[in-house]
Parts: sequence; structure tokens; C-alpha cells
Amino acid sequence: MNKTRVETFGDGIFAIAITLLVLTIAQPGNYAHLERDLAHAWPEFAAYVVSFAIIGIMWLNHHAVFTRLERIDRGLIYLNFLLLMTIAFLPYPTGVFGEALRQGQGTRTAAVFYSATMAVNGYAWAALWLYASVRRRLLSPDFPEEQRPGATIAFTGGAVAYTVAVGIAFVSPYACLAFQGALAVYYALDPLSRRADRAGASADDPE
Amino acid sequence: MNKTRVETFGDGIFAIAITLLVLTIAQPGNYAHLERDLAHAWPEFAAYVVSFAIIGIMWLNHHAVFTRLERIDRGLIYLNFLLLMTIAFLPYPTGVFGEALRQGQGTRTAAVFYSATMAVNGYAWAALWLYASVRRRLLSPDFPEEQRPGATIAFTGGAVAYTVAVGIAFVSPYACLAFQGALAVYYALDPLSRRADRAGASADDPE
Amino acid sequence: MNKTRVETFGDGIFAIAITLLVLTIAQPGNYAHLERDLAHAWPEFAAYVVSFAIIGIMWLNHHAVFTRLERIDRGLIYLNFLLLMTIAFLPYPTGVFGEALRQGQGTRTAAVFYSATMAVNGYAWAALWLYASVRRRLLSPDFPEEQRPGATIAFTGGAVAYTVAVGIAFVSPYACLAFQGALAVYYALDPLSRRADRAGASADDPE
Amino acid sequence: MNKTRVETFGDGIFAIAITLLVLTIAQPGNYAHLERDLAHAWPEFAAYVVSFAIIGIMWLNHHAVFTRLERIDRGLIYLNFLLLMTIAFLPYPTGVFGEALRQGQGTRTAAVFYSATMAVNGYAWAALWLYASVRRRLLSPDFPEEQRPGATIAFTGGAVAYTVAVGIAFVSPYACLAFQGALAVYYALDPLSRRADRAGASADDPE
Repeated sequence: MNKTRVETFGDGIFAIAITLLVLTIAQPGNYAHLERDLAHAWPEFAAYVVSFAIIGIMWLNHHAVFTRLERIDRGLIYLNFLLLMTIAFLPYPTGVFGEALRQGQGTRTAAVFYSATMAVNGYAWAALWLYASVRRRLLSPDFPEEQRPGATIAFTGGAVAYTVAVGIAFVSPYACLAFQGALAVYYALDPLSRRADRAGASADDPE
Repeated sequence: MNKTRVETFGDGIFAIAITLLVLTIAQPGNYAHLERDLAHAWPEFAAYVVSFAIIGIMWLNHHAVFTRLERIDRGLIYLNFLLLMTIAFLPYPTGVFGEALRQGQGTRTAAVFYSATMAVNGYAWAALWLYASVRRRLLSPDFPEEQRPGATIAFTGGAVAYTVAVGIAFVSPYACLAFQGALAVYYALDPLSRRADRAGASADDPE
Repeated sequence: MNKTRVETFGDGIFAIAITLLVLTIAQPGNYAHLERDLAHAWPEFAAYVVSFAIIGIMWLNHHAVFTRLERIDRGLIYLNFLLLMTIAFLPYPTGVFGEALRQGQGTRTAAVFYSATMAVNGYAWAALWLYASVRRRLLSPDFPEEQRPGATIAFTGGAVAYTVAVGIAFVSPYACLAFQGALAVYYALDPLSRRADRAGASADDPE
Repeated sequence: MNKTRVETFGDGIFAIAITLLVLTIAQPGNYAHLERDLAHAWPEFAAYVVSFAIIGIMWLNHHAVFTRLERIDRGLIYLNFLLLMTIAFLPYPTGVFGEALRQGQGTRTAAVFYSATMAVNGYAWAALWLYASVRRRLLSPDFPEEQRPGATIAFTGGAVAYTVAVGIAFVSPYACLAFQGALAVYYALDPLSRRADRAGASADDPE
């Protein structure tokens, strides 16, 4: 099983999951008051935007990780499946979260459910990165050793951050949604390249 | 992140969104009067056709833009995400618009909602093009300078045209749907190549 | 716009439409009588299998046509969009047909609706082929001239056959479903290569 | 029709089907008791995970088979369609199985239905492998002859195992779900390469 094929399969799942998100937005119930219905549905649109950003940015980081790999093995493929499963699952908690906020019922449960999904995703990222990078087992020789500690902090930090999000969900569902959005923006800056810049590394981007 | 991969990911989203459109058509309510139900559903089919045409033609223009780029950067990737998000979102307002017209309720709201989505899309196109083309920052050297002003008019004009569509939506939802269809036909003629032809440019198609 | 990209986009739509078909099967209404519900749903499964076969085989023939083309142009791209739109739409009439047969209501209307969709598809195939093959405008030089008449009969014959299916739908919905299945089997034999074999042509398969 | 294109089409169907699985999980009915609703829905999540694992692992094995083929022919394409149809269909019995377990109604029927789908899938695998491998008709010369009997046992054994699963479904739906999960894990070890290892073959992986 070569690396390109695994990446292409993953890219397909990212693209499908991100496009399926739209199906999670509940249809308006009453067209006689459509304006009011759509206005009240804003949390569903907000959840849509946050999840779209999360999946898009994770796709970028997924690619960033895979370009740093020299080869893959069966263990990595299964960790990658676990990661992809949480991505493919995301439309479900997204729909539940948006709908709960719209109804104003079950919001705490929905926020915890959403954040727990993201936490599992964070642990899958951490496991994938550690599996590949410890003792540089699967890393490309082009990937500078001085970037490795920073990348490890960024990827394992994600698991911690999303676990914190579960805690925030218990306090305030809206704060939780905002925190998820903020995390997406944070990861939009690409842990790998950002850390590299900070370290003042020679930054030969392997691409 | 290389250009081809970003294009392939975008192509996937275009293909999925265009195929998901069919799920926005409401199922017939009563099979005992199926003929009448299907006949009354014609606005849903019309909205389907218009949105299919819009996504198909935007896919063509998306490709036309990307072939004119020499390289991409992170800013372009995020503007591209914004563009893709409006495309991936389109099945939702399409379903709402078709259903509102079928029920004859909430049609104005639905038309405004649909047009507003397209207006955001138009602004994303304008932003993407300006980001890439101002001072030819990301443009390929093969792209003739004399085609640039025309292309800029076409892409920023889209934002204006779709904003106008929002105004038309307030007047008449059916006129708005027809206007959206007409815009799709207009863009079917490809802003880039059409302008090039008009300018009598040497028209070395970079493909 | 090069040929490969248009084919890849089309392949994506074929793959998505064929996989979305499963969503057209109505969920069981009452799990207390699940066995009876599933048994009564057999027309939905039959419609699923027929549409799956149709899309799969059309994908094969779509590829067969494109390999015979030397180049494509804008007109072909739009005819191709029309063809893809009927493919992407097929899950809707499939669901309606299966559900009507299951309920035993509206079966004639549903059969006519399904067959009319396929007839439009047949006309799109005929238009695409004639557009590309008349005076060999877009055909590859490798495609033997003696195969052209046979292929033209096969592709325009499809439009006729599916129009006949509309007539059969008025007589018997079940006969119509069987006829659609039989047509799929017929086209499974590939008009291009079969005609070539019959003509005893040198049969240099361009692939 | 070349091998790569058939594989790419199949990969698309695997990726779409695996991502559509999430749509089979029923939406919560009552957001006032969301916590209880989600907790009771655990069989839906379990069915989701098992089907995700099954499709993911079949994708790996599908690739493993295709890399062992030197060429494909029309018969193989149709057997491949049959295989892909059972994969694309899997979201339906997955949803029915999960929902039946959640409701505690119709569980036996749902388990039999799910297992019967997998049994058809198992027969399609066996047919595909035998069609390709008997007298090494389509096999690559790189594939060692001593691995062939083992692979044949593994692929035909799948048909037997999934038939046994139908029997288990009659006894206990939960045992059936666990057995399906265990089979997925078993096949995760890749019949082709595992048998090769056991045979102590020179194991020149053709990839």
C-alpha cells in the first residue's frame, strides 16, 4: 500500500465529509414564517462554519504530516483510519450541536458530545504523529530534527486542548463553540511550519 | 501544499456538491396523487437545474483561474476554502428556495437567502482573483497582461451582479431564479477567454 | 480544459451518484414488524439494483466514448454536463419509483417519471455522440471509420429505446422496470466494441 | 478500460460509502432528554464503527487484490461492480441494524439482513478472486504460486464465515455484531500478506 494512495483515499473522505456537513442543517419547519425560522437557525449555520473550517484545516495538516513521512506501514494506516473515522463522524455531532443550540435544549450535552468527538480526533492525531515520529521511525530525512519537538508539542497539545474543550462545554456551550473555532484558527497556522519558523530553522520546506 | 492537490480537493467538493443537490428535492408527500405532487414540484426541479448549472460552470471557471496561477500560497488556500464553502453550502438554499416556491410560502425570504449565498460566493471569487492578480502576484507569466483588466471586471462584476440579484429577490422570487439562471449562462462563456477574444489578444491559451 | 480533467470530474459524479442511490431506499416504518417491512420493500431494492447497474454501465460507456475522442471543446463539455445532470438526478426518480411500487400507489406515474429521466439521458448520449462524431469532428484518428455507423446506431438507438420505455411505463410499471434492467444488460455489452466485433473490424482497441 | 481507472472508481465508491455511513445514525428525537437519547443510541454508534472498519479494511484488501492482477477484463469489471454494490449498499443495513438494536425491536431480522448483505459481499469476493486466480488467468507473474492456495482459502473462507454470521444472527444479534467486528479485525491482517508470511515465502511484495 503506497503512501500516495492512502493520501488520496484520505483526501476523498475529507472532501466528502466537508461537503456532507450541509446535510446536517435541519430543514425549516414552517415556510409561512421562513424568515424567523432561518434567523433562529443561526447556531446551525455557525456550527456548519466551525466544522467546515476544522475539516478544511485538518486536511491541510494531514497533508503536511504525510509530506514529512518517508514511508508508511500497516500501523500507520490503522491510526489513519481512526483519524479519518472521527472526521467522517463529525457531521453527526455538528448537526446535533447546531440543533440543540437552535432549540435551546440539551445544549450542554450536545457541546460535550461535539467536544468529545474532537478530543478523540485529537488523540488520534497525537497517536499518529508519535507513531510516525518517535525515533524518526517513518519520518523523511528531509524533515529537520530541530522541528520535531515543536511539532510533537503541537500535535499532542491538540489532544490536551480538545480535552479542555470538553470542560468548557460543561460551563457554556456557546463558549465551547467559540473555543472550537479559535482552535481551528490556531491550527490554521500549521503547527509544522510555524514551529519551524520560530525555531529559526533553515526551513527547507520539503514540498 | 502544491497547486494540483488543492485543485483536486476543490474538484472533489464541486463534484460532491453538484451530486448532493438531488437530495434537496423533497420526497412526494402522497403517492395517491403522485402525478399532481410531481407537477407541483416543478420549482424544485427548476432550482435543481439552476444550481447544477451554477456549480458546473463555476467548476469550469475555477479551473480557468487556477491554470492562470503560477503558484499558490496560504492566503489563496483560505480564500479558496471560503469559495468552496459557499459552493458546498449551495444545496441548502437551493432546497429551501425550491420548497418555498412549491409551497408558495416564504418565497421572498427564500429568494433573498439563495441570492445572499450567491453574493457571498461572488465576493469570494472577487477576493480570490484580486488576491492572485493584483500586481500579478501569483499569476503565471503566460497570462497576457492585456487580459487582466477584463478578467478583473468579470470577477468583481460577479459580486455586483449577485448583489443586484438580492434586490431582484425582494421584487420577484421567480424573476430572481431566472436572473440566477441567466448569470450562469453568462459565466458559461468564461470571463477569461471571452475577454481575451474581445481584446483581440494573441490568445495563447495556456492549456 | 483538458480531456482528462473533464473525465475525472465525470467519474466523480458517476461514483457519487451510484453510492447516493442507497439513500433513496426508505427507512423501515415499524421495527416491530421489520421482517414484513423489509419483505414489502423489495421493489425499492429492485429499483436500487437496476439504477446501480445503469449508472455503472453508463460509466463504462462514458469512458469508452471519451477514449475515442482526440480532443474536447466547450460544446462537448456542456453536452457532457447535461448527461451528468441526468445521471446525478437518477437517485430521485429511483427513490420515487421504488416507493410507489412498495406502496402500490402512483406506480404508473413513477414509472413514466423514471423512464422520462432515462429518455432525457438517452437524448443527451445521442447528442454527445453526434456532436463528437459527425464528420469525425472530435474523434481520434485511431477510431476506425467502419465502426462509426454502428456506434451511431447504438447511441441514437438508446434515445429511441428509452422513449419506448416511457410507453411501456403506461402499460405496466413492473414491465417497465424489467425493460430498464434489460436495456442496462444490453448496453453492458458496450455498443462500441460489440459493433466493432460484428463488423469484423481489425479492432485495434485504442486502449 | 485500464486497471488504474477501475481501481480509482472503486476507491471513490469505498470513500463515499464509508463517509455516508454517518447519515445512517438516526437524529435524536427529543432534545429535552438528549443525554439519555444519545446514551441509548450506542448500538447505532457501534454499528457505525463496525461498518466503518469493514469498509476500510475491504478497501485495503481490494487494493491488495488489484496489485496482484496483471490485467483486467470485462468479466472482472462486472464482478467488481457486484462487490462495489454490496459495499455501497452497506449503509442501509447498518442503519437498520443500529436502529433495531436501539429500539430493541426487530433485532433478529436486522442482524440477519446485515449478515446476509455481508454474505453476498463475501460471495462477490470469492467469485472475484476465483475468476482472477484460477489457472492464474489474470494474476501478475510477480505473485508467487505458493501464495495462491492460501489466498484462495482466505477469500472463499470469507463467504463461509459471513454465511455462519447469518446463523449467529438468528441466535443473538449482539453476538452477530461482535462476530462481524471480529471478522473485520481478522481481515485487517490481510489474507494475502499473512498467508505469504506463514508460508515462509520469499515475500517479494509486488508493491
